[in-house]
Amino acid sequence: MEDRIEISLSTCKKLKPEPDRLGFGKAFTDHMFIMDYAPETGWHRPRIIPYQPIQLDPAAKVFHYGQTVFEGMKAYRTREDRILLFRPGKHFQRLNRSNERLCIPPVREELALEALKQLLLIDRDWIPAEEGTSLYIRPFIIATEPLLGVAPSNHYQFIIILSQVGAYYAEGIRPVKIMVEADYVRAVNGGVGSAKTAGNYAAGLKAQETASGLGYAQVLWLDGVQRRNIEEVGSMNVFFKLNGKLVTPYLSGSILDGTIRDSILHLLKHWEIPVEERIVTIDELVVAFRHGGFEEAFGTGTAAVISPIGELYWQGERLLIGKGDTGELTRRLYDTLTGIQYGRLADPFGWTVEVAE
Amino acid sequence: MEDRIEISLSTCKKLKPEPDRLGFGKAFTDHMFIMDYAPETGWHRPRIIPYQPIQLDPAAKVFHYGQTVFEGMKAYRTREDRILLFRPGKHFQRLNRSNERLCIPPVREELALEALKQLLLIDRDWIPAEEGTSLYIRPFIIATEPLLGVAPSNHYQFIIILSQVGAYYAEGIRPVKIMVEADYVRAVNGGVGSAKTAGNYAAGLKAQETASGLGYAQVLWLDGVQRRNIEEVGSMNVFFKLNGKLVTPYLSGSILDGTIRDSILHLLKHWEIPVEERIVTIDELVVAFRHGGFEEAFGTGTAAVISPIGELYWQGERLLIGKGDTGELTRRLYDTLTGIQYGRLADPFGWTVEVAE
Repeated sequence: MEDRIEISLSTCKKLKPEPDRLGFGKAFTDHMFIMDYAPETGWHRPRIIPYQPIQLDPAAKVFHYGQTVFEGMKAYRTREDRILLFRPGKHFQRLNRSNERLCIPPVREELALEALKQLLLIDRDWIPAEEGTSLYIRPFIIATEPLLGVAPSNHYQFIIILSQVGAYYAEGIRPVKIMVEADYVRAVNGGVGSAKTAGNYAAGLKAQETASGLGYAQVLWLDGVQRRNIEEVGSMNVFFKLNGKLVTPYLSGSILDGTIRDSILHLLKHWEIPVEERIVTIDELVVAFRHGGFEEAFGTGTAAVISPIGELYWQGERLLIGKGDTGELTRRLYDTLTGIQYGRLADPFGWTVEVAE
Repeated sequence: MEDRIEISLSTCKKLKPEPDRLGFGKAFTDHMFIMDYAPETGWHRPRIIPYQPIQLDPAAKVFHYGQTVFEGMKAYRTREDRILLFRPGKHFQRLNRSNERLCIPPVREELALEALKQLLLIDRDWIPAEEGTSLYIRPFIIATEPLLGVAPSNHYQFIIILSQVGAYYAEGIRPVKIMVEADYVRAVNGGVGSAKTAGNYAAGLKAQETASGLGYAQVLWLDGVQRRNIEEVGSMNVFFKLNGKLVTPYLSGSILDGTIRDSILHLLKHWEIPVEERIVTIDELVVAFRHGGFEEAFGTGTAAVISPIGELYWQGERLLIGKGDTGELTRRLYDTLTGIQYGRLADPFGWTVEVAE
């Protein structure tokens, strides 16, 4: 494997969007990282090039058999103008776990991180400074071999693109309403639910579209076997505070091992607040609600960090959570995590990684 | 929707592979069909162009969220040099059912068929004449919008590519050995198993790789809930003859509604041979085997038409089917279907569609 990263800089720079109109995953930076895989050479020719379209044969396997994985993380600009990444090593480890499940050859995690750092330094002017904004990082791998046989590809590309993201909570952190999905299933044990791969998201589009049409922000997925066990909310992990106790679905094999989820488990341990990782059923939530014990609920993921849930809709019933406001613990976790991410709070866990020349 | 198909012909023609070295899905013809979708215009600008790479923004949704569907069918050259398609209408109907599940706007089936016919006439020299060969047709749709939000794309491309295929059974129809999959799951009810979409194939790669390593041609999938019910074999539907009776898994929602499967059901009805569409469990197959009643088994799909199964491997036990040879009914179905496809036998069902100027 050749590790020196070739760099060719863009000769014309794009206009950056206005800071208050960043949106999510719309405006991409001036450069991208790309690296190829071939059986005889392994991963080779790592390079940073101007952001540009990719050319693929129409028979490329990614179009037909979805052999692809991705990651999502963020770079934050601190008040002192430092650039921080949040647990990038954990993201690249998960990328390789996804690769393993999808029969994609692993990437060397150190090289991926080095490539990301160099790319961020080249496009550092794109990392926004406004409160709550950041630069979203999307590493992904696609199967490029033009061959229609159903078998793992012999050729791949590993690509990193960067995109400005606006403040998720422009008007302050606010609870959302969620619909519990009774018909569609996102993933099942033995499937690819624990891998960050395209097919899981394709499978979720229909339910999400239906929920949006009914005025709900996201879908809460139940497991595909019992159809009672809570899995994820949208593309986030989920936590509940029931009768004073925190619970979250355990990593059953059909849900994603989220970085924010893991960070929250560490924080709670540090704070000596007990949390149970176990099967959580929809029935348990209904019972807690009926007895006035459904105190807090929130989703966790890289995009929103913490997304408080104010209401669940399940089989004709609206379960109001707490008083419909953001719970106390939810807010404390949000403030602490974002504080660490933006370098405003101490980082006792060594989670942040500075990007510097 | 603009229906006139623009045509721009290739100025240099590719060398065609030797007829005995066609393989599957490797050698593509000189032209392709392509059509775009935008919300304001719907599907528009249908055109036939020289076969060429497609250019996509690296943020195109197909790479990240797998919003894509496809079809697979074949064009056959008869002894009289006519060109026949086999039930193309059913394939384009299924494409639209897949579209519905994946939140992709439907294509007009008549236009898709007309586009395919024009493309086939332009590349008709590519349709091989040798016994058992054909031209494989791959229509597919990809989400092209460069936007990382998890939601259906606003832009798509519908593409048809063509590829020569060699005789599936170069040395005559021959039974394969199949491993019954105990760990991995292809699809579950409520998921996308009945749609022809990339994620289902990505989910199957790992099990297929493991089975190949152990010397098995394909995997037989069990359902994701009970883990006992037979679903599909590889990417084919499956039929069994047990104690004189034909059975096949019913369309449960997690398996594909195969064109060959459907054609066999019609043929059997025509022949007055009863067949049961119902739940078929692995236990039932084991019991039949132990009592000497496991008479025939075969997979059905566009690629192989009929793939006889000589042996199943399940939890340490080898279930020999019949005498390990191709069963009598299996062969009769194969001969009849291929006879109709190649225009050698009468087509009482009106399944074949001739492609002519």
